Amino acid sequence: MQITLNTPLDMHLHLRDNEMLKTVAPLSAQTFSAAIIMPNLVPPITTKEEVKAYKNRIKEAIGDENFDPLMTLFFKDDYSYEFLKEAKNEITAIKLYPAGITTNSEGGVSSIDSESLKNTLEAMSELNIPLCIHGESNGFVMDREKEFVPVYEDLATKFPNLKIIMEHITTKDSVEALDRHPNLYATITLHHLLVTLDDVAGGMLQPHLFCKPIAKRYEDREALLKIALEAHPKVMFGSDSAPHPQHAKEACGCAAGVFTAPIALQVLAELFEKHDKLDNLQKFVSDTAQKIYDFKPAEKIVVLEKKPFTVPAIYDTVVPMYAGEEISWSIASIS
Amino acid sequence: MQITLNTPLDMHLHLRDNEMLKTVAPLSAQTFSAAIIMPNLVPPITTKEEVKAYKNRIKEAIGDENFDPLMTLFFKDDYSYEFLKEAKNEITAIKLYPAGITTNSEGGVSSIDSESLKNTLEAMSELNIPLCIHGESNGFVMDREKEFVPVYEDLATKFPNLKIIMEHITTKDSVEALDRHPNLYATITLHHLLVTLDDVAGGMLQPHLFCKPIAKRYEDREALLKIALEAHPKVMFGSDSAPHPQHAKEACGCAAGVFTAPIALQVLAELFEKHDKLDNLQKFVSDTAQKIYDFKPAEKIVVLEKKPFTVPAIYDTVVPMYAGEEISWSIASIS
Repeated sequence: MQITLNTPLDMHLHLRDNEMLKTVAPLSAQTFSAAIIMPNLVPPITTKEEVKAYKNRIKEAIGDENFDPLMTLFFKDDYSYEFLKEAKNEITAIKLYPAGITTNSEGGVSSIDSESLKNTLEAMSELNIPLCIHGESNGFVMDREKEFVPVYEDLATKFPNLKIIMEHITTKDSVEALDRHPNLYATITLHHLLVTLDDVAGGMLQPHLFCKPIAKRYEDREALLKIALEAHPKVMFGSDSAPHPQHAKEACGCAAGVFTAPIALQVLAELFEKHDKLDNLQKFVSDTAQKIYDFKPAEKIVVLEKKPFTVPAIYDTVVPMYAGEEISWSIASIS
Repeated sequence: MQITLNTPLDMHLHLRDNEMLKTVAPLSAQTFSAAIIMPNLVPPITTKEEVKAYKNRIKEAIGDENFDPLMTLFFKDDYSYEFLKEAKNEITAIKLYPAGITTNSEGGVSSIDSESLKNTLEAMSELNIPLCIHGESNGFVMDREKEFVPVYEDLATKFPNLKIIMEHITTKDSVEALDRHPNLYATITLHHLLVTLDDVAGGMLQPHLFCKPIAKRYEDREALLKIALEAHPKVMFGSDSAPHPQHAKEACGCAAGVFTAPIALQVLAELFEKHDKLDNLQKFVSDTAQKIYDFKPAEKIVVLEKKPFTVPAIYDTVVPMYAGEEISWSIASIS
């Protein structure tokens, strides 16, 4: 059995910098045509010049691979219309982090209210720059995303012309909010379609499945799976593939992030086939994102086949999801 | 400031075996007068002879320390009245594990219903042997204890003369059940009085705070804290101190258990002082347990004083809770 994916896109990706960038960027560049690159470096990417320089480092890391890094700025509430108008040529979106909510987000927004963010968000609306949000409150870990839904809804209502992407959603509350506002969209990761908190902490503790937002309950996973499998027109694949070196994961104080980039398409094929929805995978991993972001990426044809593949135990220093395990789909060809 | 504790008791303790036993047993024996010793070795302790042999190994590990290991059997539903009558001289209680629910519980009970356990539980009632239970269902990790409460209540109703100890309770549901049945009692650990799931997985993932049952929500911790601080007459301190070597905790697939034995009394003093309830600590760590289990342990006087103490980073191979951190109470003298 085979499936041909035309121009796969990863709408939420962490490539990091320096040695880690050199390890992980080629892996995404191999199988994806383009990806939205997160700006939470240390320090975060907040100027046009930093965007350009980071993009060049990515290009260098991937060599002559046919891959388009879609750059983002780290949201600051003092970005002016003029600043954004200039930056617009270099970026695809702006990523908003509540301060301190995840890896390298210390410089994020400490109070997300529509009034204090008004100038910047109105400028983004006018310039048609999408706003990507890591939507979590600073409440109890299992409630953080649910508690953030009213913030999404307030922003969506006050800025009706702003495209708001609820990044890496993990709860049925977010799924339900999606259909209440025409300008709310979402990305869903691979791992949140597969695991619940039981997989992270229900048996032995699994640091390589620990991420933010943390995996939730079964009914949440079901809600995510439903809209992904049906290729809901407002939902895109975004891996949130987030590499950390093994020593930072298997440690006292383990960093958050699941590394899925090199196996994402194969496991998605496995999952969609299992639910008899392979026909919808093209929309979930490419077509819907092109419509929402209104762009035309360079073509890349990835043929997947149902043939066992043993996931490497480690990629350089990074342990992937399913390390050492056999998955049932492989990449047959890329052109 | 000082407090004198008369005969501190740890009513739920894991001492393991072999090298680990030699590391941890002396640490508990130093500050506690006696402790209920869990039987989940590999294989579990299920005969009188195994109890005696294990008790001897513990005695050997602690040398001439004044410490009484209160032994337990690993519950099996085929224990007969005759078997238990003979075993009674060697044991203080019997511990029931649902099969597979925690470390070394594979041989536990696969179906806990009052009918299939009837013969053994009636024999225990008649012989006045308390039943200690690890009360978790095999459901979603945050719901397991709540889902087990009806099982506790069914057993408490059907066997009104059986003393049932709800071990290491972590939820307000269990706290509420405690007062509904005269023959339900509970132990509470140190760590469940201090942490919630936020401490385990809300920031970086903290393997040394990962345990079973997993730490729950703030309202659960509040409910536990309330009955511990007020020295509720059905609630005893049981550390559930559960050592694993560092390599098994800081790993891909981290074992469940928090190691608190060597710091438990000091941190309890800190906690009870903070809430202005130091006067109730004696009941929580000794008097109540003596009443519930109806026994008179050998006297040991432990004087604690408010004086900073830096917790060792490691005890041999085992990382304790608060490793390397300063706590505000120390042990002044033991006699």
